Amino acid sequence: MTRIDDLPIRDELRGKSPYGAPQLDVPVRLNTNENPYPLPEALVARIAERVAEVARHLNRYPDRDATELRTELAAYLTRTGGHEVTRANVWAANGSNEVLQQLLQTFGGPGRTALGFEPSYSMHALISRGTGTGWIPGPRRDDFTIDVDAAVAAIAEHRPDVVFVCSPNNPTGTAVDAETVLRLYDAAQAAGPSMVIVDEAYGEFSHHPSLLPLLAGRPHLVVSRTMSKAFGAAGLRLGYLAADPAVVDAVQLVRLPYHLSSVTQATALAALEHTDTLLGYVERLKAERDRIVTELRAMGCDVTESDANFVQFGVFEDAHAAWRAILDRGVLVRDNGVPGRLRVTAGTREENDAFLDAVRTVMKENR
Amino acid sequence: MTRIDDLPIRDELRGKSPYGAPQLDVPVRLNTNENPYPLPEALVARIAERVAEVARHLNRYPDRDATELRTELAAYLTRTGGHEVTRANVWAANGSNEVLQQLLQTFGGPGRTALGFEPSYSMHALISRGTGTGWIPGPRRDDFTIDVDAAVAAIAEHRPDVVFVCSPNNPTGTAVDAETVLRLYDAAQAAGPSMVIVDEAYGEFSHHPSLLPLLAGRPHLVVSRTMSKAFGAAGLRLGYLAADPAVVDAVQLVRLPYHLSSVTQATALAALEHTDTLLGYVERLKAERDRIVTELRAMGCDVTESDANFVQFGVFEDAHAAWRAILDRGVLVRDNGVPGRLRVTAGTREENDAFLDAVRTVMKENR
Repeated sequence: MTRIDDLPIRDELRGKSPYGAPQLDVPVRLNTNENPYPLPEALVARIAERVAEVARHLNRYPDRDATELRTELAAYLTRTGGHEVTRANVWAANGSNEVLQQLLQTFGGPGRTALGFEPSYSMHALISRGTGTGWIPGPRRDDFTIDVDAAVAAIAEHRPDVVFVCSPNNPTGTAVDAETVLRLYDAAQAAGPSMVIVDEAYGEFSHHPSLLPLLAGRPHLVVSRTMSKAFGAAGLRLGYLAADPAVVDAVQLVRLPYHLSSVTQATALAALEHTDTLLGYVERLKAERDRIVTELRAMGCDVTESDANFVQFGVFEDAHAAWRAILDRGVLVRDNGVPGRLRVTAGTREENDAFLDAVRTVMKENR
Repeated sequence: MTRIDDLPIRDELRGKSPYGAPQLDVPVRLNTNENPYPLPEALVARIAERVAEVARHLNRYPDRDATELRTELAAYLTRTGGHEVTRANVWAANGSNEVLQQLLQTFGGPGRTALGFEPSYSMHALISRGTGTGWIPGPRRDDFTIDVDAAVAAIAEHRPDVVFVCSPNNPTGTAVDAETVLRLYDAAQAAGPSMVIVDEAYGEFSHHPSLLPLLAGRPHLVVSRTMSKAFGAAGLRLGYLAADPAVVDAVQLVRLPYHLSSVTQATALAALEHTDTLLGYVERLKAERDRIVTELRAMGCDVTESDANFVQFGVFEDAHAAWRAILDRGVLVRDNGVPGRLRVTAGTREENDAFLDAVRTVMKENR
């Protein structure tokens, strides 16, 4: 039998495992920050309708420029983000991972570097490596906020070509304020000029407004978003960005032609028609998230302030053992490798109750 | 206004344009090798049904491993390709472009090279460049077949990490026989060992059987396929490969997690249920392709032998002027930059008649 290492793969891939959380079959899965609410039946019907329409022309390539979809995404951002953007400011791809990959192919790549403040979304480092971009881990404070002076110093020292700012940050839930982003942007311009990518995958769940208005007059700033979380559409794989139109033009130099299928475009357009309903679910999840924070603290947990649809909690002497103990009670949370901490996704009220009961038991047993 | 060149993009992207054929609004479009037959209405209904099913769980991430889809693709290849493959041999992505990109990220990349025999599918070179893989243009004979001795010599000289063999070749339509592939594979093993990728995007249209049986005992061989052409589903973006299971494991080290959406998987599965109907359309198109070859030759054109759903023809003193003259008669064909030649996709009988009439007129006027 041939094994991976018998193949002439790239050296840096040897001994590596594919990225991905374990997909275990347990009653309560709160490990991948999915939205717990299924799409409403009216939206399911509308998706079937719009997909049938495009399926009649499926023998033709999709709209390479995703014109209608980008127009509707721009309208959504304008309405909810506090900043007017048009189709020319917006680009879409198969998940925000592909958006980030295209950005790194354009602005990173071999001989260039990207910097992010860890712990953060591990795909930033992985996609950097996948595109040949050197990865530089930047600092965070012990409370998981960004120490602006230390961050500015890191940018000045390493002069990265791309700076990632994840807000709200995954896996900690930490929001980054506009003033911090501005100082990082200025530092990146002085050191580069470099691109600054604000990853707002969880933006809709924040207590704070979007950082979108910072785009005004900053052509090296990019805000990335996804329909996976707020739109309850992780299965759709629709990520997008807002930026100066020149950035949108530039990523088209590296995107695979016709990368976004007609069925993906049709499904996303249907979901955007139901924005108000879906944002209603977001409000429910924000309340549940805040409840999880409060109840975990009442149990004596150390809980990181959260602006996302998940909560980081601890501190456990052995986080992996705590993860296993919670799993034994039928609840799957995420062990991201942050020392002493675990991450739980805000689910339905019932799921969150099951989670809180499990933690309560585990806390008692360890006392 | 910011322009692309004002941004800190990679140097090799400066001055480049995005890949893609002009999408012009003309009565007869025979320029992108699309299948002219819309999906049958029963399949459209089945797609809507299967997509509605997955839309009910769209809040969850898709099956990361596309298990059911890979199983059905393997069954299709086993039934039609003359070689038994299982799910473990098959991998799928958003179009064969993404399949090729993942292969190059795994086996090519910075400091490595890929070689293809030009003229061929230009995305092989473009995706190589996009992944930092050096591109080496290999030779073809004047009749667009591969000169095996010259090809073997090129592989021995350049020792590429990846060798592309496109069969049937785009844009020439030329099939490559099994014996040639075997000699290229042996040369690549002696020089490397290197991976050999046989791009069979147009495989179903060939007069010859698939090269799939060559996979037996050759772990460095990959056959890539697409549903864009034979399945009439260019809008779906579903490409796949068959290879040793170790190759399938290896590409998972570079694939973006959850790269293939639930709606894409559902739509592809629906199309596979209708394989027999769709392969019936392929038979019609093969007959039309053969008719185009015969009629163009009767007009005095130099026509390259074709095993694809398109035909390369010439010789024109000024191919671009001929392209324009045919366009002026309402028919859009492709100018691929092959000196003196143009490429026409086999359309419906009526579309092909319109094309043949246009060429007849152009040929007469230039006499």
